[in-house]
Amino acid sequence: MVGMETHFETIHTKDTSLPEQTAEQISKLIVEQRLTSKDKLPSEFELAELLHVGRGTVREGVKLLVARNVLEIRRGKGTYIAQNPGEIPDPLGFAYYPDQLRLAMDLVEIRGQMEPWVARTAAERADSESLKVLREACSVVEQDILAQRDHSQSDVRFHVAIAECTHNLVVPKLIPIITYAIELFVSLTEGRLKTETLVGHRELLDAICDKDGERAANAMKQHIEHNRAMLAGCMKELRE
Amino acid sequence: MVGMETHFETIHTKDTSLPEQTAEQISKLIVEQRLTSKDKLPSEFELAELLHVGRGTVREGVKLLVARNVLEIRRGKGTYIAQNPGEIPDPLGFAYYPDQLRLAMDLVEIRGQMEPWVARTAAERADSESLKVLREACSVVEQDILAQRDHSQSDVRFHVAIAECTHNLVVPKLIPIITYAIELFVSLTEGRLKTETLVGHRELLDAICDKDGERAANAMKQHIEHNRAMLAGCMKELRE
Repeated sequence: MVGMETHFETIHTKDTSLPEQTAEQISKLIVEQRLTSKDKLPSEFELAELLHVGRGTVREGVKLLVARNVLEIRRGKGTYIAQNPGEIPDPLGFAYYPDQLRLAMDLVEIRGQMEPWVARTAAERADSESLKVLREACSVVEQDILAQRDHSQSDVRFHVAIAECTHNLVVPKLIPIITYAIELFVSLTEGRLKTETLVGHRELLDAICDKDGERAANAMKQHIEHNRAMLAGCMKELRE
Repeated sequence: MVGMETHFETIHTKDTSLPEQTAEQISKLIVEQRLTSKDKLPSEFELAELLHVGRGTVREGVKLLVARNVLEIRRGKGTYIAQNPGEIPDPLGFAYYPDQLRLAMDLVEIRGQMEPWVARTAAERADSESLKVLREACSVVEQDILAQRDHSQSDVRFHVAIAECTHNLVVPKLIPIITYAIELFVSLTEGRLKTETLVGHRELLDAICDKDGERAANAMKQHIEHNRAMLAGCMKELRE
């Protein structure tokens, strides 16, 4: 910890609370020291010294960062940097949107625009490693559907695996956001899409494995258009 | 609060901590009761009764939801539902990515794919209200640039205003994510893009006001391609 003092200003009174400012300073420390999930956070005592605040304030600041998944407490081991620091489930707060059906329709519009490009880029850039992961993800969805288990989560995972084939850092992070409505969707359509999902996913997988960008983009377009039409039908039924 | 008891299960011991489970139950209450930023959260006492936990646990659960911007404490008024519950700045934790330049390049790739479509859709769907907001946002960027102020934030706001013209609920929420690197970008290019920004933004604004989707998409494509080329140039310089 020697020499770190120079990087961090003493905390002064600002608009935000002292624990919030402390959280900001700790977050800055993580970024500047390039700490990763292998690294333990310095002790409360060290942080208090470094940031010139009390240990109680450090504790509150740490709690804020745990709540935001920047830090994680490992039982019996102490406080560490989280695996994917700062990434939280439902990061845009979709659960609080009053009109979940409209949200689902707006998400499917974005998917229809975005995911054909993702599939094309995946086909163009996939390597053997990412294809192996994609094949496995495809099998898991199939097993879930055939065993009559809910396949919402494995379905999202399959679309994330396609996104990972692009080797773009951010695309795989956007997929869970834009596929947020899949769970609602699976329950609304009461599994009427299972056959289409099985066939559609296989087509996607084959096109990407064949490195055929055009075919992959078209397969994705069709897959999402089918979903969109089904969702629109369900909404119409619900409103009648 | 009468009749609410039936919706919420008593908290049992699970993998997650008691405050975390309490936070989940409070969040469920907000969703099911459709509480909004106009609504005050029930008192600690009421929540403790309802969820069959101690007031200290309620307090910890509330803190978690404040940290995640689901709740907010209004001074002298009490605890309320936040304005955009569950929405946090930097929701994907980009600040913690070790390679910020690669992140910027990957983001610009997504922008190049996504934003021309956003501009086209904005031109097709904008109403007079959203156009008014867009015109104002365009002026603010111009004022910032002409006054030599940092225009990173007003630039993001302009792109969000375009997204709002689409009337898709989610598109405006994605723009701050994919434009995350603008600040880094503005500092890297040391303002070499100011003229292009002024001209590019005006072209975009005019095309959208003219409801010319094709021209808007092309203007956006050019705007982002210009940014991408400049960023690639800066990266090359940095690595030499």
